[in-house]
Amino acid sequence: MPGTEITTLGEFGLIRRLTENIVPKNPSTLQGVGDDAAVLDYAGRQILLTTDLLLEGIHFDLTYTPLKHLGYKAAIVSFSDIYAMNGKPRQITVALGVSRRFCVEDIEEIYQGLYLACENYGADLVGGDTSASLTGLTLSITCLGETEKHKTVYRHGAKETDIVCVSGDLGAAYMGLQLLEREKNVFAGEKDFTPDFAGKEYLLERQLRPEAREDIVDLLDKAGILPTSMIDLSDGLASELLHICRESRVGCRIYEEQIPIDFQTASMAEQFHMNLTAAALHGGEDYELLFTVPLTDYEKISALKGVRPIGYITQAAQGSYLIGRDGGEIKLIAQGWPSL
Amino acid sequence: MPGTEITTLGEFGLIRRLTENIVPKNPSTLQGVGDDAAVLDYAGRQILLTTDLLLEGIHFDLTYTPLKHLGYKAAIVSFSDIYAMNGKPRQITVALGVSRRFCVEDIEEIYQGLYLACENYGADLVGGDTSASLTGLTLSITCLGETEKHKTVYRHGAKETDIVCVSGDLGAAYMGLQLLEREKNVFAGEKDFTPDFAGKEYLLERQLRPEAREDIVDLLDKAGILPTSMIDLSDGLASELLHICRESRVGCRIYEEQIPIDFQTASMAEQFHMNLTAAALHGGEDYELLFTVPLTDYEKISALKGVRPIGYITQAAQGSYLIGRDGGEIKLIAQGWPSL
Repeated sequence: MPGTEITTLGEFGLIRRLTENIVPKNPSTLQGVGDDAAVLDYAGRQILLTTDLLLEGIHFDLTYTPLKHLGYKAAIVSFSDIYAMNGKPRQITVALGVSRRFCVEDIEEIYQGLYLACENYGADLVGGDTSASLTGLTLSITCLGETEKHKTVYRHGAKETDIVCVSGDLGAAYMGLQLLEREKNVFAGEKDFTPDFAGKEYLLERQLRPEAREDIVDLLDKAGILPTSMIDLSDGLASELLHICRESRVGCRIYEEQIPIDFQTASMAEQFHMNLTAAALHGGEDYELLFTVPLTDYEKISALKGVRPIGYITQAAQGSYLIGRDGGEIKLIAQGWPSL
Repeated sequence: MPGTEITTLGEFGLIRRLTENIVPKNPSTLQGVGDDAAVLDYAGRQILLTTDLLLEGIHFDLTYTPLKHLGYKAAIVSFSDIYAMNGKPRQITVALGVSRRFCVEDIEEIYQGLYLACENYGADLVGGDTSASLTGLTLSITCLGETEKHKTVYRHGAKETDIVCVSGDLGAAYMGLQLLEREKNVFAGEKDFTPDFAGKEYLLERQLRPEAREDIVDLLDKAGILPTSMIDLSDGLASELLHICRESRVGCRIYEEQIPIDFQTASMAEQFHMNLTAAALHGGEDYELLFTVPLTDYEKISALKGVRPIGYITQAAQGSYLIGRDGGEIKLIAQGWPSL
């Protein structure tokens, strides 16, 4: 009897199936699988724990990814999960599998990126495992972070009438990837190709060397705003918003015209004849924060730079929809797991 | 200019080069890279953090490794690092990269092994990342553990005249691997080969489904013995003992005739015409505990079942040697990093 193909469940269906029967045994385990990070309690201190895996050919292409940027991005991906719980990263461990074609200096470059990210975000690299690999480069980062008690923000706290907000702008990392892939194909076979990326630097930076939104976490804290739910945008706005809606048992309406998009992203989408809204909804790798705040915080949140209200939370029965520029409602769907 | 080959440094040389300049920024980071696990302090609770990476073709061969055993072993490898610090495992996260040839049921088997290990050792699986992989199976486990303050045991505490002890017996996992590799070659090409392993079950179990020595940690605690240094045997007795000696700035003498070896291991070595002591010294994957205790604990330690004194600690200047059955001294050397 052939087994069930993973694509029939998708990544999140698979995770649910694998983890649905877990009953935590330790009093220190407050929340396990199902959010950006696990939440643990040690002597009253809330500790966050998250792991990310980056595999060559799936998550990165070394044709155009400098190793230092790869190390930096790997750490950022992990930090972003901690900020999405309203926490601060404290320690990371690194599991690294490298094949023969890498030399010591290559690995040092990856570590330089990791150290720079740790420096910029106040984390310590405290351990790891380095191994030979028969195939590609494998990089797994685990981050331990910390939140103040009662200030941990989960995916499951969104309430009807809450405002849906997003930081920064969306779709740029995806457009950066399209740009890099196109240049790779154009220059196929040529070594060390150096295409002209003038005027598109922002897109490349968003793809190759993203930042995590510690500043937004601090900004909200200073403004006295505690989000009711939060998640980071690694898989695209639609997918992540549906996570919040499912976990919070609510629906939502977001406005297409409110989705923040940078000029370079829009111009690139036009050049590529791509749907700009689709890029923002499904592009992924933005590492922005998506969160909800109570309606009573509307004035406070509107006054903040770098944060944009894009819609509101409804009852679950009303479903989750994008309201288009023409006023039509389009059902939000999560993308599948294209890489499997 | 071609880069430096990793083999010129070896695994531990590489790690030292990558991590020698770390200065921890967080007060919660008590000790980073350089022991079985990092040691963190959160509100006075000592937390241990360790990561291990298992790659197909390097650490395991799916020709003869049942997926459930693989999951079990992956967790055990991680728990063993926590016990080696005199701690208890509490939470694990799992990073899993799987290629198209795996189905949902395969991944469930890996998870069944992980859950069983968590059940047996009192840990919770609290998170992870599952991804497609273009190549082989990738598995990285991070374990968070806990020790009582003042009871954390490092590699660096061994003192002159301390007794060197080891739990269980050594070399069996290595012999199990040799046996499996031989049968794989004999049955090459045949699917689902079922060789006769009668009388060699212990060797296979040690290789495919090892256990971590929680019982030894408990036994020492009940006997009122706090080791001065400890490490787990993943890379072989010689390599691990040299870690303790280097970190503690001491030397050692261990007696060949005192190294505990099971009958099945000895009989298999004879059959394979292999040097039994070499298998015990360099075999690896025993996941036993190697530790030192003060000379004043000699009587206590001698009374414990499953623990064997195998030698003593000297001044660093006296070097690290194995005393052979004939009384001759053989300098202990660590094996390289054969897989790169």
